Amino acid sequence: MARINENFLKLQAGYLFPEIGRRKKTFQKANPDAEIISMGIGDVTQPLAPAVIEAMKKAVDEMGRKETFRGYDDGGIGYEFLRKAISKNDFKSRGVEIDIDEIVISDGAKCDTGNMQEVFGLDNVVAVSDPVYPVYVDTNVMAGRTGAAAGQGRYEGIIYMPCTEENNFVPDLPKEKVDLIYLCFPNNPTGAVATKEHLKKWVDYAHENKAVILFDAAYEAFISDPNIPHSIYEIDGAKEAAIEFRSFSKTAGFTGLRCAFTVIPKQLKAYTNDGRAVEVAPIWKRRHCTKFNGVSYVTQAGAAAVYSPKGKEQNQRIIDIYMNNAKLIRETLSRIGYTVYGGVNAPYIWLKTPNGVSSWEFFDILLNKAHVVTTPGAGFGSAGEGYIRLTAFATPENVKEALERFQKV
Amino acid sequence: MARINENFLKLQAGYLFPEIGRRKKTFQKANPDAEIISMGIGDVTQPLAPAVIEAMKKAVDEMGRKETFRGYDDGGIGYEFLRKAISKNDFKSRGVEIDIDEIVISDGAKCDTGNMQEVFGLDNVVAVSDPVYPVYVDTNVMAGRTGAAAGQGRYEGIIYMPCTEENNFVPDLPKEKVDLIYLCFPNNPTGAVATKEHLKKWVDYAHENKAVILFDAAYEAFISDPNIPHSIYEIDGAKEAAIEFRSFSKTAGFTGLRCAFTVIPKQLKAYTNDGRAVEVAPIWKRRHCTKFNGVSYVTQAGAAAVYSPKGKEQNQRIIDIYMNNAKLIRETLSRIGYTVYGGVNAPYIWLKTPNGVSSWEFFDILLNKAHVVTTPGAGFGSAGEGYIRLTAFATPENVKEALERFQKV
Repeated sequence: MARINENFLKLQAGYLFPEIGRRKKTFQKANPDAEIISMGIGDVTQPLAPAVIEAMKKAVDEMGRKETFRGYDDGGIGYEFLRKAISKNDFKSRGVEIDIDEIVISDGAKCDTGNMQEVFGLDNVVAVSDPVYPVYVDTNVMAGRTGAAAGQGRYEGIIYMPCTEENNFVPDLPKEKVDLIYLCFPNNPTGAVATKEHLKKWVDYAHENKAVILFDAAYEAFISDPNIPHSIYEIDGAKEAAIEFRSFSKTAGFTGLRCAFTVIPKQLKAYTNDGRAVEVAPIWKRRHCTKFNGVSYVTQAGAAAVYSPKGKEQNQRIIDIYMNNAKLIRETLSRIGYTVYGGVNAPYIWLKTPNGVSSWEFFDILLNKAHVVTTPGAGFGSAGEGYIRLTAFATPENVKEALERFQKV
Repeated sequence: MARINENFLKLQAGYLFPEIGRRKKTFQKANPDAEIISMGIGDVTQPLAPAVIEAMKKAVDEMGRKETFRGYDDGGIGYEFLRKAISKNDFKSRGVEIDIDEIVISDGAKCDTGNMQEVFGLDNVVAVSDPVYPVYVDTNVMAGRTGAAAGQGRYEGIIYMPCTEENNFVPDLPKEKVDLIYLCFPNNPTGAVATKEHLKKWVDYAHENKAVILFDAAYEAFISDPNIPHSIYEIDGAKEAAIEFRSFSKTAGFTGLRCAFTVIPKQLKAYTNDGRAVEVAPIWKRRHCTKFNGVSYVTQAGAAAVYSPKGKEQNQRIIDIYMNNAKLIRETLSRIGYTVYGGVNAPYIWLKTPNGVSSWEFFDILLNKAHVVTTPGAGFGSAGEGYIRLTAFATPENVKEALERFQKV
């Protein structure tokens, strides 16, 4: 008798975004004339940069000619031309040496942050921020690393680290001993950033406890403050302590193309039950080349063009558009009396709901009265209750329109 | 202390193809002038069909314009336009009703066949053919569904079903009770096919034992015999018994683009430990939308063009090229005295090594003397010992050249 993985049955309701989609569809059905503006799911709206389009067309042409056709990406870890560009532009340029063998290309930071837990034993204690990107938690639930969902939707066995106004949405070190720590900076959903001092504390904690930090830097391109680190490897000792996840999704509008990468330094070790140190990178590569078969050559060619002089300039202009949106949202909402966080070094604005209204309640009010889709903070964890997340990824026209509607609500 | 998933440490040597690549590289380094012909890894060599190229270029253009730009593929299960084309062309055309909601698009059959075990409990007994596509086994090892590797490289806890000359390389029903059964027809690596009668036995077994068949049909496009089923759903009762995996990789040369799909009928159930039936499809979708974020729109647009009248005609011509290769390989090697199987309804030829020479020994002889890379049968399991796999995916010129060299060895 085939038995189902019962861990999946522990998962609560739908994954957050399908649930938002469901409410949006229900509303749209009942109000077919309403023009809904989406500031909910963090999806980009600006078209791809011309340099990327050009590179992809060239790559498509190559795939149509015998002499230049490419099949499997050898080993599935990504073309050297792309890993070289990443090593040079994302790391060397910031004084960090990352070898191309320490970089593995994938089809998304969601996939990588979701799959990485697999290379670690089931008996590791996992710590996450609260609020948290649901993928970190749900994939650990699926793997069986947690008990059932208990009070406030928290799963037994996971250590939740509250991020609140009091700690500027940067979690304090846990009192418990933990083994795997998910950190995301610039943060989704709060828009908070971590300073070098913050990260140093975490790196030191990892050293002391032989823990591993899973550092999600998918939003690093939105950092405007020159003192904020873009990579955790800007912190001394981080190579022994952290895995870093990056993505082209938000940096270069690749949500519909799928390209990302993960860095696992040679120095990073995990341990067998009898205390033997094992390099993590070869284990991840083994998983990768057994369960995955590489990213489309056309997409990788497009990703490499992100690092060309034109690609850099064009993508910076796109990021400027989004960050101008963020500024407008932040300033407008502050002016009309809301308390808002984030939006300076991140494309997310974390808005405190007025008068203690709940997240989903405020979500429904905004959907029904302003026809604006947001993301309820409670969907990211119990410490997100009383907040909603707004994204800066809409078009500038839609952002302006949405803010006018906000002011009327 | 972060602990590694020690199941990974049970895996033997490298995954088969990296090991072949390593030996090839070593040889090439020592013999820089040798012109190596690859008949090893099953990678295509013909360029993409013009209809696919055209559709992809159009899609790239759309991604460069504000009005037509696409971000996330909603829900990540694939665009409706592609699922509709699949339902109509791959199933309805053969008298099988598969709803578009039963189809989930992914980035590879390797990924899907590797990940599917995750939605089933760890206590299921897994049966695989021997020889076997290593991904089925290795992913179950990683998950912890096996013990250590024992004699002949077989893992404890897995039921191996020998495929030999005696049973025409179609496995017999196991004597043990098994829960999950991996079947692949047309078979990789033997090139064998299963008749309707063969598959009916398996479907009946699944019904009787509430087992689930994981049916890998990635090579169905190479079937030339009109009596051989392309889909397991051509067998009565299969919808309650089987999941089917398909791929554009070999059918349409998408190895470098990454597109595939999985069919899970609504009727397919697995069970909780207390005997409650659970639909498998929603669990797979939940996994998919949590750990994956859709296939590139550009790739999906290309895949849809495979079903256009021009796309069908052009891809059929490409398949004909490969199947002419297969015929030539089969006939030439038979003529010079080898015993060969497959190559009629599959792009793989399964060659019996002469004089009881071992698989890897024969691999090395062919590499060193003929400069031809093959795949040692032993790499697919102990019942593959004494065979090598040849693929028909090289260019016709290379196939001719390789066969001439074979005759000299």
